[in-house]
Formats: sequence, structure tokens, C-alpha cells
Amino acid sequence: MHRIMLREVIIDVPAARFEAVTTFWSEALAATPHPLPDEPFVGLRGAASLPHVATQDIGDDPTPRYHLDIETDDLEAEIARLEGLGATVRARYDEYAVLVDPVGLLFCLLPPVSEEFERRAKTVQS
Amino acid sequence: MHRIMLREVIIDVPAARFEAVTTFWSEALAATPHPLPDEPFVGLRGAASLPHVATQDIGDDPTPRYHLDIETDDLEAEIARLEGLGATVRARYDEYAVLVDPVGLLFCLLPPVSEEFERRAKTVQS
Repeated sequence: MHRIMLREVIIDVPAARFEAVTTFWSEALAATPHPLPDEPFVGLRGAASLPHVATQDIGDDPTPRYHLDIETDDLEAEIARLEGLGATVRARYDEYAVLVDPVGLLFCLLPPVSEEFERRAKTVQS
Repeated sequence: MHRIMLREVIIDVPAARFEAVTTFWSEALAATPHPLPDEPFVGLRGAASLPHVATQDIGDDPTPRYHLDIETDDLEAEIARLEGLGATVRARYDEYAVLVDPVGLLFCLLPPVSEEFERRAKTVQS
């Protein structure tokens, strides 16, 4: 058994529009943009939002999209469980994995870093 | 002044895949699917998630997507504010509105119905 929790909505934006769209969502959600050092992400701190929210610069990829970040305390077990349910792994890194659901919607699995995880995560069968 | 809060992630799925994808996300997030009467939505109750999560049957539309639901206690004022920031209204109904952000990402504005709104909403300038 391990635990999971959907933490965050990521707004993926092509490089040419990244700054403008980060400004839009920061103001839309009454948040303070907080660029992550050495990462293509800007966290929208203090957003008027139940999930965490960030924007991501997706470079030359021309297609904006939302994706979801799900925390898990057992990456291997959660990948195996979700593959069993019909997800597909698109990319696998040391610390995280990129998957799609049965109709191709993108989400990532990451280790728990949020303060909410201990309180809000649910246990699933490995 | 009025208040806003991003409440929910909606997983929009073409009719032909709706049941399978609703089952996938229910199991993925350890939730109980709860169909809304007379609506094309299934709420994923008790999901392991900071935001509320639901699936929506989008019928003949072939393109799966996520969209976001944002609650506001002043729909007119929030539409005007977001249009000023660069959003575009796609459809306007009595009780809610469908908008896109500057790069075309879909979100809806709705009246507050969540138990979290009083505690978690933030005030913005009308």
C-alpha cells in the first residue's frame, strides 16, 4: 500500500506566450508569480485556488495545455498501479514520471513535497 | 470588490470513451463516481485531491481536455475583470460563463457552491 494526492494544475505555455500568460493567470488568481530557479516553471503563490497552480514554459511545443501533478510516496508502485488501470508512461526520470490517461491527457507523478500530503493523501493498493 | 476561487478540475471526455475514462480517474484518485442528475457530469467524490474533480461527457466533440472551474460571487464583475486581463468569453449563460485564457485554454466561471469558498476565496478588485 502507498499514498497519492492530486496536488497541482500546471498551465503549459509555448515560450513565445509564456510571460504574458503567466501574468494573466497570476492576476486572474490573485497570486504572486515565483519563478523556480533553473526550472521552466513559475509557481503562482497564494493563488485563490484549492490546488497549487504553476505555469510551465514548454519551449517550441506549439500547443498550450493544462496538465496535472499527482504526488505519491511510492513512484514505482503507483506507475504499476496506473498502468494496470489503463495509463501509459510517456517518460520516466529518476524522480518523476510523465503519463497519459486512456484518452491521452497528460499528468505527472512526483514525490510528496506539499505540506498537505500527510493530511490529505489517500492510501491505495499497490 | 468581489471574491474568486479555483475549485475544480473537469476532465472532458468524448461520449464513446466517457464511461471508461470516468472509471479510470475514479480508481486513479481513489474516488467514488457520483453522476449528477440530468447533467453530463460525474463528480469524483472523496478523490485524493486538493481540487474537486469531475468528468464531463462532451458528446460528439472528439477532443479530450482538462478545463478549470472558478467560483465567483459576482459573475458580471469577474467576467469584466478577466476580459480586461486578456480572457475571451466563449459562451454566456444565466448562471455561468465559459471563457478562454490568452492562449485558448478553457475555464468556466460559476457561482460559489463549495464549502471551501467562504474560507479560501480571495478578494479581487472589480
